[in-house]
Amino acid sequence: MGSGEDDDKIRASKKTLTVVIAAILTLLTSSQGILTALSQSNGGYDYDYATVPFLSELLKLAFSGVFLWNEVRSSSSTQITGDWKTMRLYPIPSVIYLIHNNVQFATLTYVDTSTYQIMGNLKIVTTGILFRIMLKKKLSNLQWMAIVLLTVGTTTSQIKGCGESKCESLFAAPMQGYLLGVLSACLSALAGVYTEYLLKKNNDSLYWQNIQLYGFGVLFNALRLSVDDVSASFSNGPWWFRLFNGYSFVTWLVVINLGCTGLLVSWIMKYADNIVKVYSTSMAMLLTMVLSIYLFNLQPTLQLFLGIIICCMSLQMYFTPPHLLVDSLPQSSLPLSATRT
Amino acid sequence: MGSGEDDDKIRASKKTLTVVIAAILTLLTSSQGILTALSQSNGGYDYDYATVPFLSELLKLAFSGVFLWNEVRSSSSTQITGDWKTMRLYPIPSVIYLIHNNVQFATLTYVDTSTYQIMGNLKIVTTGILFRIMLKKKLSNLQWMAIVLLTVGTTTSQIKGCGESKCESLFAAPMQGYLLGVLSACLSALAGVYTEYLLKKNNDSLYWQNIQLYGFGVLFNALRLSVDDVSASFSNGPWWFRLFNGYSFVTWLVVINLGCTGLLVSWIMKYADNIVKVYSTSMAMLLTMVLSIYLFNLQPTLQLFLGIIICCMSLQMYFTPPHLLVDSLPQSSLPLSATRT
Repeated sequence: MGSGEDDDKIRASKKTLTVVIAAILTLLTSSQGILTALSQSNGGYDYDYATVPFLSELLKLAFSGVFLWNEVRSSSSTQITGDWKTMRLYPIPSVIYLIHNNVQFATLTYVDTSTYQIMGNLKIVTTGILFRIMLKKKLSNLQWMAIVLLTVGTTTSQIKGCGESKCESLFAAPMQGYLLGVLSACLSALAGVYTEYLLKKNNDSLYWQNIQLYGFGVLFNALRLSVDDVSASFSNGPWWFRLFNGYSFVTWLVVINLGCTGLLVSWIMKYADNIVKVYSTSMAMLLTMVLSIYLFNLQPTLQLFLGIIICCMSLQMYFTPPHLLVDSLPQSSLPLSATRT
Repeated sequence: MGSGEDDDKIRASKKTLTVVIAAILTLLTSSQGILTALSQSNGGYDYDYATVPFLSELLKLAFSGVFLWNEVRSSSSTQITGDWKTMRLYPIPSVIYLIHNNVQFATLTYVDTSTYQIMGNLKIVTTGILFRIMLKKKLSNLQWMAIVLLTVGTTTSQIKGCGESKCESLFAAPMQGYLLGVLSACLSALAGVYTEYLLKKNNDSLYWQNIQLYGFGVLFNALRLSVDDVSASFSNGPWWFRLFNGYSFVTWLVVINLGCTGLLVSWIMKYADNIVKVYSTSMAMLLTMVLSIYLFNLQPTLQLFLGIIICCMSLQMYFTPPHLLVDSLPQSSLPLSATRT
């Protein structure tokens, strides 16, 4: 009996830890948007933005190395699987992101950025579907409804308001644009779900798994910078000579913040799941919009207010234990109390 | 045992009947908006709009009289309570509506019509609250969330789109405007909930109850027309001489449709409840907006699409038996499947 109680305690403390980590992830993801906006000057970047993910991957790699070293020294049970059959799976997320970036680029030739942003919310639904299919996690009908509502909520907050300058109809783009948008949402979800699959595949140390993930991340980002250089015929010289060009203090904060965000996402993927991550980042988007109102003196909008309510309801529906949701329900849900005689 | 099965059958067939009546109510309420728009010429009414509710009350009174006559003839068990203590309660809904109309008028001196329309959605929440307090009906947390979502959904569909001409901020009206808007939502809900209380108070024939309700309805509407005449110093003559002035075929359809809608609402109040009515009329509003796109060649909007999804989710959450919603839920709602060793 005592062991059952202990299990409950361990489960409860893990749940608390997950909530705390998810909350920190929300705050950091939210800061990311604001820091990136603050790192611009005169509406553009003084630095090459492609260097930011490269440096943050490098940072995550270094951190994971130090953490792993520390873990190996202090614990004898650290599990490290180094066989080729497992390791060869680790570049796959990077490859998916690479394809995703190109699809994203193709999509934007058909649709404008705000339509693209709206379609990006589809990622929430595709994550739910791939989570169900690939990781075989069952969701209740209520949880499916919560996922749809989260998508609807984030989309609502992005509705183009009255009086905005650019005013394209969302339904006016060519069909290819929408199909590519859906493909983009699928690829983005696939990368996330595949990473979760990889990290949960065995009981290897998360730090060791991170080293493999980020090692390939560094490699692919370096490749991308080199390809950019080749297509510019090295007119600015090779990227490693101008890596920190135009970097300000805020740019470094962007890099560090992106690195920390990535480490937290890894933790969530291993010890919680993709849906927790999707909720964190969606809530972060709304938080960024609220903070922007204060920081950049914007007008609060009805759509943001409604979007926040919808997403909070969705959060409750997904994570609240069902007996707390339906406790005081009357016997018949269509009440017909008066009886004709 | 057989009696229990019979009860189940009766309950199931009543449920089906309620769904059918609610669906018809949705269709008629939706037609009401479109017929009213079609009855206008050059953006205005050729007839005195205040005569429409008067005539429809008269129509409902006549119908209820015929129905009651029919019921009394064919059945010996028709219950008719004629004592003063019960009858004196029947003018109350009419009085509440009268106060509501005046509050509505006062509200509109502080806020513009679109803000008033948005605030009108609060009626859904106030109906839920008064339903709980006055009729002592318990709702589950999930049902409360559904009611909030219905409010959010109808509001979302009304968000002022990009490119609309008038563009006031929703948050710019004076505080009195919002307070009056909330009061208006409370009064409107109070009238509905009080009517339900009245109709369910005893097992009187619905037709007899209707006769009392509509009798006072006719009286109060006649009073309103007379007051209008007095404030216009009878410059157009008394209202009963120009009752049908400017009436077209469509105007008659508006009157008949409003009458039928009222009779169905009475039925819903007696044999189902205010929440079923609120869902019917909210769905009707969305249906009207969809039909308007086809009929009046309007552009479909993202907000309407999102509003429809939210309201459909809300409908499912409120009426689906809970075990169907949370059936396949995993043990822990924050999955922590991988365990570190």
